[in-house]
Amino acid sequence: MTQLYNKVALIGLGLIAGSMAKAMRRAGLAGEIVGHARSAETRKTALEIGLVDAVFDTAAEAVKDADLVVLCVPVGVMGSIAQEIAPHLAQDATVSDVGSVKKAIIDAVQPHMPDHVHFIPAHPLAGTEHSGPHAGFADLFNNRWCLFTPLPETDRAYVDRLKQLWSEMGANVEEMDAEHHDLVLAVTSHTPHLIAYTMVGVADDLQRVANKEVIDFSAAGFRDFTRIAASDPTMWRDVFLNNKEATLEILGRFTEELFDLQRAIRRGDGEQLFDHFTRTRAIRRSIIDAGQDTNAPNFGRYPKEGD
Amino acid sequence: MTQLYNKVALIGLGLIAGSMAKAMRRAGLAGEIVGHARSAETRKTALEIGLVDAVFDTAAEAVKDADLVVLCVPVGVMGSIAQEIAPHLAQDATVSDVGSVKKAIIDAVQPHMPDHVHFIPAHPLAGTEHSGPHAGFADLFNNRWCLFTPLPETDRAYVDRLKQLWSEMGANVEEMDAEHHDLVLAVTSHTPHLIAYTMVGVADDLQRVANKEVIDFSAAGFRDFTRIAASDPTMWRDVFLNNKEATLEILGRFTEELFDLQRAIRRGDGEQLFDHFTRTRAIRRSIIDAGQDTNAPNFGRYPKEGD
Repeated sequence: MTQLYNKVALIGLGLIAGSMAKAMRRAGLAGEIVGHARSAETRKTALEIGLVDAVFDTAAEAVKDADLVVLCVPVGVMGSIAQEIAPHLAQDATVSDVGSVKKAIIDAVQPHMPDHVHFIPAHPLAGTEHSGPHAGFADLFNNRWCLFTPLPETDRAYVDRLKQLWSEMGANVEEMDAEHHDLVLAVTSHTPHLIAYTMVGVADDLQRVANKEVIDFSAAGFRDFTRIAASDPTMWRDVFLNNKEATLEILGRFTEELFDLQRAIRRGDGEQLFDHFTRTRAIRRSIIDAGQDTNAPNFGRYPKEGD
Repeated sequence: MTQLYNKVALIGLGLIAGSMAKAMRRAGLAGEIVGHARSAETRKTALEIGLVDAVFDTAAEAVKDADLVVLCVPVGVMGSIAQEIAPHLAQDATVSDVGSVKKAIIDAVQPHMPDHVHFIPAHPLAGTEHSGPHAGFADLFNNRWCLFTPLPETDRAYVDRLKQLWSEMGANVEEMDAEHHDLVLAVTSHTPHLIAYTMVGVADDLQRVANKEVIDFSAAGFRDFTRIAASDPTMWRDVFLNNKEATLEILGRFTEELFDLQRAIRRGDGEQLFDHFTRTRAIRRSIIDAGQDTNAPNFGRYPKEGD
């Protein structure tokens, strides 16, 4: 039990905040955990299920005396929350976030931060298709990465303490430049999500195929898309609006490649298709070897008889 | 224990044939199960691990006296196998297949079938990213669909017996027209696979992002694409070459939708993005309700510490 912070304020009480609260408790990392959520119902639930020790009606009240404040709100409101809490932040408080884009958040938050606090942007690469205060669980970050994009002038001692927090919540930690982070995530997350959202929309629209057929016969591949296309709409809207450049770049490359494979299909070029499909297998193997997925058939989701 | 067939010949001994053999054994559905695979090594393995009771060097030998022959080979070789086995098929044998497209298989196989056999095309919607004789397991078909596209003139008694076999192997069964099947699968399977193959290829190509980053940070969405992009390249090459029309139609719609969302990102139209992302959530819910996926976070694949 290494208590790293006396009082942690979580602003926004959804999947990530809930999982952080549970992971911090499990390892005794925080003296007290308090929170704020915009919705009165979420605040009530969070208190009832013991997600936090106290909730506050405003973010400004929640951050009072906190030595760690974590912004767990959609990317689009980070700036206004930062502005709201700024005058209430304690001396030497660490302010961090869990947003999926980093450059836009730095641009929105940093200008509001007073000199006596340490703003350290971070992004845990973990999530599920569930959201809300009930969705969190302590294991969410185990063996997942948390990426830090600290500003060059930040006091290293504060960065290191925050990295230790994430390590002790189970995550692997790494630092990179905010712009590079946004490009990497455009590839590994943002573009795949947009594509999945698109494909699920196409299936939903297609009048010649009944929705019941799409749903019943989804095990043939489609369902893996629906999982990521079920993620929180507000969060994803904000991701795309705030990582526009990198997402559009990767989408451009994706479309180019897709047209190339489409042309191979139209021309009946089996060799090109085979070569492409062979190459992509190796990447899968590496992801399993890196411990970022399971090798079990169907991710181990065997349907049981009578399910 | 209802034995439905005296002797079943499986032509091709990969994931589907292996799972069929195990599922038939579990329910005592077949008197004897024999097989053929093109590769001597696969034949040897299949015999050693008891996948089949006997293996034969040629498909022609394997089908002798069989009352059920199931073609479990890539779509592209169905026709030549049909031609090879035709003279050796027993009186009133049922010949079926497990191919992912149906119209092209009917066109390739049916002309070779003698009048004294019953050709009943079928397609179990089940699979994993693994292939080969070791990949099969008895539960693969539990609560998955097996689609039948029988020809109108086929004797119903033989169709019903084959449907019973699949039911007793754990599957739900349904009949549809071959052309409709190919369109439904283009939506639920073929196009999603092509998109996943494309995205994984893009990530692999991108020089500004290291492969190690793509792999380490894949949990943010990308890894769900890699699973389906790790499927058997030969099988998928043949699927696209043999369901060209429907796949290209769905790809066209997909690209149209993608461009529309891409434009919304470029213009910063948050409302359009939010509306689209909200709509797709409902489909996910229906798939879980239909028992075609698990609601567990991460499909229940919690990484353990030290993994």
